[in-house]
Amino acid sequence: MPRTHARKFSRSETTRAEAFSDGVFAIAVTLLVLNLADPPHKPGGLGRALLAQWPAYLGYLASFGYVAVIWLNHHQAFVRIRSMDRGLHAANLFLLLTTAALSFPTAVVADALQTDLTDSDARVAVALYAGLAAAMCLSWVAFYQQIARRPELLDPEVEDTYVRHGRLRSWAGALAYTVAGLLGVFVAPLLAIAVFVLLPVFYFVTSEGLPGGRDGSS
Amino acid sequence: MPRTHARKFSRSETTRAEAFSDGVFAIAVTLLVLNLADPPHKPGGLGRALLAQWPAYLGYLASFGYVAVIWLNHHQAFVRIRSMDRGLHAANLFLLLTTAALSFPTAVVADALQTDLTDSDARVAVALYAGLAAAMCLSWVAFYQQIARRPELLDPEVEDTYVRHGRLRSWAGALAYTVAGLLGVFVAPLLAIAVFVLLPVFYFVTSEGLPGGRDGSS
Amino acid sequence: MPRTHARKFSRSETTRAEAFSDGVFAIAVTLLVLNLADPPHKPGGLGRALLAQWPAYLGYLASFGYVAVIWLNHHQAFVRIRSMDRGLHAANLFLLLTTAALSFPTAVVADALQTDLTDSDARVAVALYAGLAAAMCLSWVAFYQQIARRPELLDPEVEDTYVRHGRLRSWAGALAYTVAGLLGVFVAPLLAIAVFVLLPVFYFVTSEGLPGGRDGSS
Amino acid sequence: MPRTHARKFSRSETTRAEAFSDGVFAIAVTLLVLNLADPPHKPGGLGRALLAQWPAYLGYLASFGYVAVIWLNHHQAFVRIRSMDRGLHAANLFLLLTTAALSFPTAVVADALQTDLTDSDARVAVALYAGLAAAMCLSWVAFYQQIARRPELLDPEVEDTYVRHGRLRSWAGALAYTVAGLLGVFVAPLLAIAVFVLLPVFYFVTSEGLPGGRDGSS
Repeated sequence: MPRTHARKFSRSETTRAEAFSDGVFAIAVTLLVLNLADPPHKPGGLGRALLAQWPAYLGYLASFGYVAVIWLNHHQAFVRIRSMDRGLHAANLFLLLTTAALSFPTAVVADALQTDLTDSDARVAVALYAGLAAAMCLSWVAFYQQIARRPELLDPEVEDTYVRHGRLRSWAGALAYTVAGLLGVFVAPLLAIAVFVLLPVFYFVTSEGLPGGRDGSS
Repeated sequence: MPRTHARKFSRSETTRAEAFSDGVFAIAVTLLVLNLADPPHKPGGLGRALLAQWPAYLGYLASFGYVAVIWLNHHQAFVRIRSMDRGLHAANLFLLLTTAALSFPTAVVADALQTDLTDSDARVAVALYAGLAAAMCLSWVAFYQQIARRPELLDPEVEDTYVRHGRLRSWAGALAYTVAGLLGVFVAPLLAIAVFVLLPVFYFVTSEGLPGGRDGSS
Repeated sequence: MPRTHARKFSRSETTRAEAFSDGVFAIAVTLLVLNLADPPHKPGGLGRALLAQWPAYLGYLASFGYVAVIWLNHHQAFVRIRSMDRGLHAANLFLLLTTAALSFPTAVVADALQTDLTDSDARVAVALYAGLAAAMCLSWVAFYQQIARRPELLDPEVEDTYVRHGRLRSWAGALAYTVAGLLGVFVAPLLAIAVFVLLPVFYFVTSEGLPGGRDGSS
Repeated sequence: MPRTHARKFSRSETTRAEAFSDGVFAIAVTLLVLNLADPPHKPGGLGRALLAQWPAYLGYLASFGYVAVIWLNHHQAFVRIRSMDRGLHAANLFLLLTTAALSFPTAVVADALQTDLTDSDARVAVALYAGLAAAMCLSWVAFYQQIARRPELLDPEVEDTYVRHGRLRSWAGALAYTVAGLLGVFVAPLLAIAVFVLLPVFYFVTSEGLPGGRDGSS
């Protein structure tokens, strides 16, 4: 019965890809706490030392929010995906590779901004963060691109606009992070941080397909 | 068949939210061990150095217990939830954000109390812990609030008292951690630690809906 | 339909307890790698520095093996468990608390033995490891005890000997780790390490219920 | 009903082995980011310090790619496995033990190559990486060997060539990593790194059974 085998195969494939991805998202998001260090301080100076690492808290919020939105988006995608081919696995693994790496630029940004808010190190740090965050968006572009090329990977009931909107939102994200990086490098690093924190909020509030959105779909 | 699609959508949504949340809880609880460091010591001084970091062990117990109770509570909630809207996702993600961060104040408390049990740093540390722990309770308040506003998110069989009791217990938790923080700041930090360790035990023993509770339900 | 509700409740309860436990086991076992540090060394001295940390490798093997056997055992238990009450949750959470902590004594043992194989620090370290490992066994004793007291938590098809054998094996493990600790403290720490490495192998090879065991059951 | 019991047993066994393995893979792959440290640097020197740790980025790519391919392979295997015996558990646990350890040689290689690209430490480091990577392949050899010995563990529909091809590919991997290690030790460490990065890509592109491969099977 090759048909049964194929069906079992496909289901299992997306299920385990979801489980593996959920694992990576959950760990990536939780490891961010390692950037919130117990700060070295003189006796009686703990309060001030905790306040002084406010860039680390902003970085935690920005990166937690980003991974959370990625996870929601990923979930919306896999509700609609029926099977995965090699190209879709590649896009998904590239997404996981960049997501898992996000705590690295988060730490670099937090450290650089605690030293000096505007010097060249702070500019390098936000550029690094923006670059990786934009790469995460580009892996989504590749993801939707692959679905567009191979529509048989999707559930046939999926609305026509799904892939088009997703791709557009991903390009917009890559652009937004690039602009944020340029603002951070040429204007002020803190401006980039503001975008890093607000962008996930914007994507969460405007995400489609969630019940309770403006379209009220469910 | 939009109806089938919607049903499939909802089921998958709560399932993946549970999987992602379970992942974060499991990692948050296990990462706490990183606060139990092999202590630096002179030759022959390992035993004393291990004993000297007793606040780290208390912190491990308090935070492990807190996350474990949160997990049980989360599980009780998702047994009753039929679908998630944007607001419920937001409350859940805020809960995960605060839970994942818990090992940070745990480390700060353990370190401050090893240096001095009563100085201003110890008071700052317990205030930080109490603040985050109370924020975790408030994310539960928001969670129940959203369910109360949108009862269609719940399974229709759910007992009437569920949301009311949950919200009440969450407010009580926020209050208890706030009082513990105030006691720690104005009376004695060690008093706060005692509350941090005992509160999860109290919530575990009095949790509703578990077979074997006083009500013997199930 | 209270009956349907209860059934759904029970199934979900054991499923999520398994998922959460699997998460903790998987993380606990993988975090052990953090004890395998890139050793500080002089130029040209990497090879020797890597060899010098052999106690860290033994510790990794011992603790990985222990958690792996715990996971297998846990899996055998949950195949047979139909629902969980508060007491069983408590035993399970105590097991997870001790398992998650295992990398702490593993690091302490590895460090102490790299400094000196027989001094008092090495003896303290193996006593700490033995103590926690024995506590893990005692949490299994509590687990089986609770099942023995509340047989309705088990699948009715479960063989009569299951709980009796499990409890016996858990007591034996607690005894074996205690003896290993005493040997380590009063005779030679290295002797304790040998037991720590071999005990999981023994438990794996003699584990019941696995197809391919001597009883050939499947 | 021993038959029902056995069937339930088998299903649950492979399901939890998959869940536990997925957890370990997801954590192992995400923990690799801990090797991407915020580099110590002088004011204004962040950019250069980030570039100087390029071996850490290569190591991240190599090890992420390796674990990702292992995960895909593992998934292909468990689609076909019907039940697990003790021998298969042993091979799987040995695979997890080596996979979880991979971030250790990754860190050693990255550190050694940042100090000196060709000295004896760099050669020792790549030999360590090659040794562990080859051991991971050998655990796959043991895995397929066990399936070949006990064909009843497999789904009866599985294609005849599956085990033969898998074993061959595993031996080839062990050989390739050994050759890479020898090249690294006797010719140039950087040559070994190139193989470490490219080998997972090769295995991903040539993996069988994925829809979208050259054979177009699905």
